[in-house]
Amino acid sequence: MILVLKESAKKAEVDNLITWLHEQGLDTHLSNGKYQTILGLVGDTSVVDEDLLSGLEFVESVKRIREPFKNANRKFHPDDTVIDICGSKLGGEHFQVIAGPCSVESEEQICTIAEEVKKAGATMLRGGAFKPRTSPYAFQGMRAEGLRLLLEAKKKTGLPIVTEIMSANHLPLFDDVDVIQVGARNMQNFELLKELGHLRKPILLKRGLANTIQELLMSAEYIMAGGNEQVILCERGIRTFETYTRNTLDLSAIPVIKELSHLPVIVDPSHATGIARMVRPMALAAAAAGADGLIIEVHNDPPHAKCDGPQSITPDAFASLTEELNRILPVVNKKQIGE
Amino acid sequence: MILVLKESAKKAEVDNLITWLHEQGLDTHLSNGKYQTILGLVGDTSVVDEDLLSGLEFVESVKRIREPFKNANRKFHPDDTVIDICGSKLGGEHFQVIAGPCSVESEEQICTIAEEVKKAGATMLRGGAFKPRTSPYAFQGMRAEGLRLLLEAKKKTGLPIVTEIMSANHLPLFDDVDVIQVGARNMQNFELLKELGHLRKPILLKRGLANTIQELLMSAEYIMAGGNEQVILCERGIRTFETYTRNTLDLSAIPVIKELSHLPVIVDPSHATGIARMVRPMALAAAAAGADGLIIEVHNDPPHAKCDGPQSITPDAFASLTEELNRILPVVNKKQIGE
Amino acid sequence: MILVLKESAKKAEVDNLITWLHEQGLDTHLSNGKYQTILGLVGDTSVVDEDLLSGLEFVESVKRIREPFKNANRKFHPDDTVIDICGSKLGGEHFQVIAGPCSVESEEQICTIAEEVKKAGATMLRGGAFKPRTSPYAFQGMRAEGLRLLLEAKKKTGLPIVTEIMSANHLPLFDDVDVIQVGARNMQNFELLKELGHLRKPILLKRGLANTIQELLMSAEYIMAGGNEQVILCERGIRTFETYTRNTLDLSAIPVIKELSHLPVIVDPSHATGIARMVRPMALAAAAAGADGLIIEVHNDPPHAKCDGPQSITPDAFASLTEELNRILPVVNKKQIGE
Amino acid sequence: MILVLKESAKKAEVDNLITWLHEQGLDTHLSNGKYQTILGLVGDTSVVDEDLLSGLEFVESVKRIREPFKNANRKFHPDDTVIDICGSKLGGEHFQVIAGPCSVESEEQICTIAEEVKKAGATMLRGGAFKPRTSPYAFQGMRAEGLRLLLEAKKKTGLPIVTEIMSANHLPLFDDVDVIQVGARNMQNFELLKELGHLRKPILLKRGLANTIQELLMSAEYIMAGGNEQVILCERGIRTFETYTRNTLDLSAIPVIKELSHLPVIVDPSHATGIARMVRPMALAAAAAGADGLIIEVHNDPPHAKCDGPQSITPDAFASLTEELNRILPVVNKKQIGE
Repeated sequence: MILVLKESAKKAEVDNLITWLHEQGLDTHLSNGKYQTILGLVGDTSVVDEDLLSGLEFVESVKRIREPFKNANRKFHPDDTVIDICGSKLGGEHFQVIAGPCSVESEEQICTIAEEVKKAGATMLRGGAFKPRTSPYAFQGMRAEGLRLLLEAKKKTGLPIVTEIMSANHLPLFDDVDVIQVGARNMQNFELLKELGHLRKPILLKRGLANTIQELLMSAEYIMAGGNEQVILCERGIRTFETYTRNTLDLSAIPVIKELSHLPVIVDPSHATGIARMVRPMALAAAAAGADGLIIEVHNDPPHAKCDGPQSITPDAFASLTEELNRILPVVNKKQIGE
Repeated sequence: MILVLKESAKKAEVDNLITWLHEQGLDTHLSNGKYQTILGLVGDTSVVDEDLLSGLEFVESVKRIREPFKNANRKFHPDDTVIDICGSKLGGEHFQVIAGPCSVESEEQICTIAEEVKKAGATMLRGGAFKPRTSPYAFQGMRAEGLRLLLEAKKKTGLPIVTEIMSANHLPLFDDVDVIQVGARNMQNFELLKELGHLRKPILLKRGLANTIQELLMSAEYIMAGGNEQVILCERGIRTFETYTRNTLDLSAIPVIKELSHLPVIVDPSHATGIARMVRPMALAAAAAGADGLIIEVHNDPPHAKCDGPQSITPDAFASLTEELNRILPVVNKKQIGE
Repeated sequence: MILVLKESAKKAEVDNLITWLHEQGLDTHLSNGKYQTILGLVGDTSVVDEDLLSGLEFVESVKRIREPFKNANRKFHPDDTVIDICGSKLGGEHFQVIAGPCSVESEEQICTIAEEVKKAGATMLRGGAFKPRTSPYAFQGMRAEGLRLLLEAKKKTGLPIVTEIMSANHLPLFDDVDVIQVGARNMQNFELLKELGHLRKPILLKRGLANTIQELLMSAEYIMAGGNEQVILCERGIRTFETYTRNTLDLSAIPVIKELSHLPVIVDPSHATGIARMVRPMALAAAAAGADGLIIEVHNDPPHAKCDGPQSITPDAFASLTEELNRILPVVNKKQIGE
Repeated sequence: MILVLKESAKKAEVDNLITWLHEQGLDTHLSNGKYQTILGLVGDTSVVDEDLLSGLEFVESVKRIREPFKNANRKFHPDDTVIDICGSKLGGEHFQVIAGPCSVESEEQICTIAEEVKKAGATMLRGGAFKPRTSPYAFQGMRAEGLRLLLEAKKKTGLPIVTEIMSANHLPLFDDVDVIQVGARNMQNFELLKELGHLRKPILLKRGLANTIQELLMSAEYIMAGGNEQVILCERGIRTFETYTRNTLDLSAIPVIKELSHLPVIVDPSHATGIARMVRPMALAAAAAGADGLIIEVHNDPPHAKCDGPQSITPDAFASLTEELNRILPVVNKKQIGE
C-alpha cells in the first residue's frame, strides 16, 4: 500500500502515523521526493482500512498494491481450484451445466424437468424453493416443501441439486442440498456469509447487481475466512443504463476473475438477459470466454401450463445448446460437459 | 396493467389467458385495433407477475399502469406520514437531524460526541454497533457492547438512537433501540424485512446502491405488509461511473418519492459522497430539495485519535451547518430542526 | 404507439389531440376502459415525438410499439445486409477481422504491421490518423499524413483500410479510405452523420459509451436516411461502475442487434477492455455470440519501441487467435475468416 | 505521477524508460522498496499518456498525482473566474438564471416568452435553433432562421442569448450570439472544441451523459488551450440505471468542480429530470449546493398550443421559483439573481 502525503504534512503527524502503522504490524518505507513524500507500507495490509488512511488531513491519496483478499487470491494459490460435487468436478478443465426451472412447483413438475434436462446434457439440477421477490405479494416459493421435492428429483435422477438460501435461519433445512446458492441480493449479507463459512459444502456465490469483481472476491473471502474453501463464483449480469436486456452480462469478468483468483466461475445467461432468445448466444460466449460452467433456466411445457418465465428455454433448445457447447469447449482447452 | 398482444396471437391462446386472469380475480378489457390487440387488466394487479406475462410467446409487451406498491402508495394515503420518535416528529413539516460517529468505539467516545452533536443542533444520535464491512478482516463493530454504550449515551443526553441491524437473529438486542436502520446492502434482504414488519417501531430503510426508487418502495412495502407502517426512507447515493465521489447522491429521488409515496425521506450526504468537504453543500441541497431530515457523520477529535472517517465532519462544522439549514427550511415550508 | 390517458382527461382535450394526430397523417383508435382510456396510434409514428406527447397534462404514459427506426429495421428488411469491401464480404455468414496499430506512426511502422497482420489472418487494416484524445496536450495523430501512409500500406498489402473521421471538414481527405469509422464520442454528432449519409461508402459506427442499442440504431438511421445503406455497427464497451476493465463489453448487444436490425455488427475487444490479456477471451466470446467480425489492436514490436498501448496484442498472439476463431465460427454457422 | 514497477522489472528496461522520460522534459525519482520499486515523475506530466505507461510490461500501475488539466485548474488560478455577458456577471458571488423555450418556433413565440421570462426574473434567454435529435425524422430546429429570431427577441428585451451549436461549419451564423452552447452529445467533439478555442466569447459546455467530471474539465481545457478562457460548465444529469427521471442530476459535481477548478458551473434541472414537477426542487437544491446559475426551460402557453415539452414549466411557476431562489442565495453567500 502506498500513501502519497501532502506537501503540507507536518513531521509530527507523519511520525505519529508511522508509529501507529508499526503497531499494526506493518513495516514502512518513507521516500521524500521534491514535490511529494511517499510512504510505502509493507506487510499484511489487509488489516488496514484504506478509507481511514485516506481520511487523514495530510494524506493526498492511498493506493493499494496488493489485493485485499488472501484465501481467494491466485497469487497465494496458483492452481485452479476444482470442486467435487457428488463426483462431478467443476473448475480447471472441467465444465458443468446446471439446469432446471425457476421455481419448484410440484413433485411431478420438478421430477419431469429433472429427467428432461439430464437427458439433454445437464449435470446438475437447479430449482428455487425460497424465492427472493421484489414484491411481498408475489409467490415466495414452496420453501421447505420445495427442498423436499428437489431431493425427490435427485433421488430419481441422481443429479446433484443447487438451490438458494435466503436466511441463515433456514440452514438446518439445507443439510442434504449439494450446492447452496447465495443470490445476487444477498452477496453482501455478511452475517449469512459468515455462517456459510462454517460449512464444508460448496457455495455458489452470485455477483450482486452493482458489485465490482473485487467486492465479489471479498465476499468469497468472507466464506473462505471461516474455513470453507469451496466457493463457486457466478457472473449474472450487472445493472447499467441499457434497458433492452434485464441486466448487462459482464463476460469480461471471467478472464478477470481467472487472473485474480483460483476459484471457479460460472455464468447465468438466463437471469442476466431475462430473454430466452438470448440464452443460447450468451451461453456459447461464456464458454468461449473461459467459464467453468453455466446455470440455465429450462422450463417444463406440459399442455396446460399457462405461464412460464420469459427467460426459460425449452428442453429441446437446451439439448441443442449442450451439443454446441461441446464443440466450443475444446477450443478453450476444456473437457466435454461433465467429464 | 396493459398487455399488447402480437398480431400472430391465436384466439385460443388469448381466451386461455383471459380465463386464467379471471381466476386470479381480475377483470379484463379486450380492444382489437387494426395492427394490434390490447388487453387491459382491471383490479388488484399487484398479484400478477409482470415477468410471467411478458414471457408468453404471444405477448408483445406489458405495461403496468398502477404502481405495484399499496401501503406505501400516496394514491391510497394522500397525507404525509409523520413518525413520532420519542416525541420528535419526522415527516410532513418536521425536519430532524441525526448525527454521530461512524462506529461506537468506547463509552467516553460515544457519550462525548452525543453531547457535542446535541449542543450543535442534532435531534437524534447515530452510531454503528454492527458494521457491514467489505472485508472480513476489517473491524466489525463492538456489536452487543456497542448497543449498550449507545443506550448509555441516550441516558445521558436524551437523544433517541438510530443504529443498524445486520441479521434478524440480533433482534432481541434491539429492544431499546429507537430507530432500527437497514443498510443499503440489506435493502433486499427480504427475510430480514419480513421480520421487521412484525415490529411496531420506526425502521430507517436505506436505498441500495443499485436499486431503483420503485424497488426501494417495494422493500418498504415488505415491512408495511407485516403491519409496521413506520418506515423512513433514506437516499444515500447510487453507484455510477463517476469515481470522484464514492457514490452519486440522487437528490431527485426526494421529489420523486414525495410524489409516489407518503413516507418520509431523509438523506445521508456523508456516505453518499465519502468526502467531508462535500457534506455541507449536499446537506443544504437535500433540505432545499424537500428532504425530511438528514443523517450525518460527526467525529470526535480528542488529542490522541489517530484515524477518523474521511467523510466525517467536526462538531464545529456541524454546528454551522444546522444554522444554515434552519435558514433554508422556511423556503421549503418546513419548521426549524426538531420543531 | 399507445397513449394511456388519465381518468381526469377532458373530452375537449382528447378531441383536440386526436385532430392534431390526424393532421400528422396518423389514424387513431380510442378504447374507453373502466379505469383508463387508451388511445392507439396507427401509421408512421416515427414522425411523432414521444416526449412531446408524454408531456401533455392529461396523458398518463406513452408506449411505443414499433421501433422508431425504419431503414435499419429487420421487420422491413428481413435478410442480413452483407457489405462488400473491395471484394471482402461482411455480414450474413461472412466474418472479417480488422487489425492494426492504435495510431499510424511512420511508413515503416504501418507497412510492417500491415504485412504481419495480413500473414496472421487479418482481412482489413486499421490505424488511427485522426485521434480523439481526452487531453488537448496528447498526441492528436498524424492526420492527413497518416491517411497517406495507410494508403501506402494498402498498396503494399492489398488490405482495405479502416480509419476514423472526426469532422465533416476532413471528408475530402477520406476519398480513398475503404471504410470510414465514426468513433464512440461522435456517435451522436448528428451533423457528421448526415454528411456521411450522402456518401456511398461503408461506415463503421461505434456505439457510444453511454448509448443504448436503440440510440445506436437511430444513429445508423441518420446515415441511412441520407441514402447510404452500408452501415457496420460496432460494440466497444459501455461505461459502468466496474473499474477493472476500461469499459464493460456488452456482448448481449450482438443478439439484440441481430433481432432488431439486418445490419452487420462487429466487436472491438481491445478498446472495450483496455487490457491486452483480455482480448483473446473476449474475441472468442464475440464470435461465439454471433458477431460478424472483430476489430483488434495489434502492435509492432521492433527492438527500440518504448511505449505501446496496454490493449494491443502481438502479431503472434493475433495469429493464434485467428486460428481459434476459425474453430469457433462453424459452430455459429459462419464461414472461415475472410471467406 | 507515480509508477509502481513490478518486482520482475529488469534494470535495463527501467533505465530505458527513465532516459525516455528525461527526453520528455521530466525529472524522475526512483525509490527501491523491499517489495516494489516506485518511480516518481516530476514536471509537466500532462504531456505523458497514462495509458501508454501503464501498458508497459514491467509497470504494475500508474497513479496521477497532479490533475491533467492546467488552464482550468484552481491550483494555478485560485480565484473564481467571473464571466461578463453583456454586463451580466456569472461566477464568484454572481448568480444568473437563463430561461426560455426548448425550441424557437416563431417570432411571436420567442419574443413573447422572452418578455415573460424577463418579467419573471430571468437574466438571459435560451432557445434552440439547431436541435440535436435522436431521430433523423424529428424536427431539427429552425436553424439559421431560429438564430435570427433569437436576435429579434434580444433586441426587444435586452436579454443576452444562449443557443447551441452543432457543427463548426455553422460558426459564421453565431457571430451575434452572446453565449455559444456545446450540448452533452458534443462534449467530446474535439474538433469543434478546438474551433471554439479560437473565439473570444463565452462557451457554455454541458457535461456528457457518461462523462466524468475530470473529462468535462479536460474538454474545457481543449477550449482554453486555444486561448478562450470564458468557459461556463453545466451539469445536466448523467446516465444511470434509474429510469424514473430521464437522467440522474449529479449535484455533487458542483462542489467537486468548485474544488478542482475556478470556472463557473451552472445546472440544467429541466433536461436532467425531464419532468416539469421536478424542476423547482432541483433548481433550489442546485442553488443551495453552490451553483453559479441555472438554465431552465419555460414554455409559452397560448390557447392553441397543442404540444409542449414535459420538462418545461410555466412562466408563473418560474416567477415563484426565482423568488425562492433569492431567499436561498444569501445562505450560500451569493448576491441576488442578476446582481
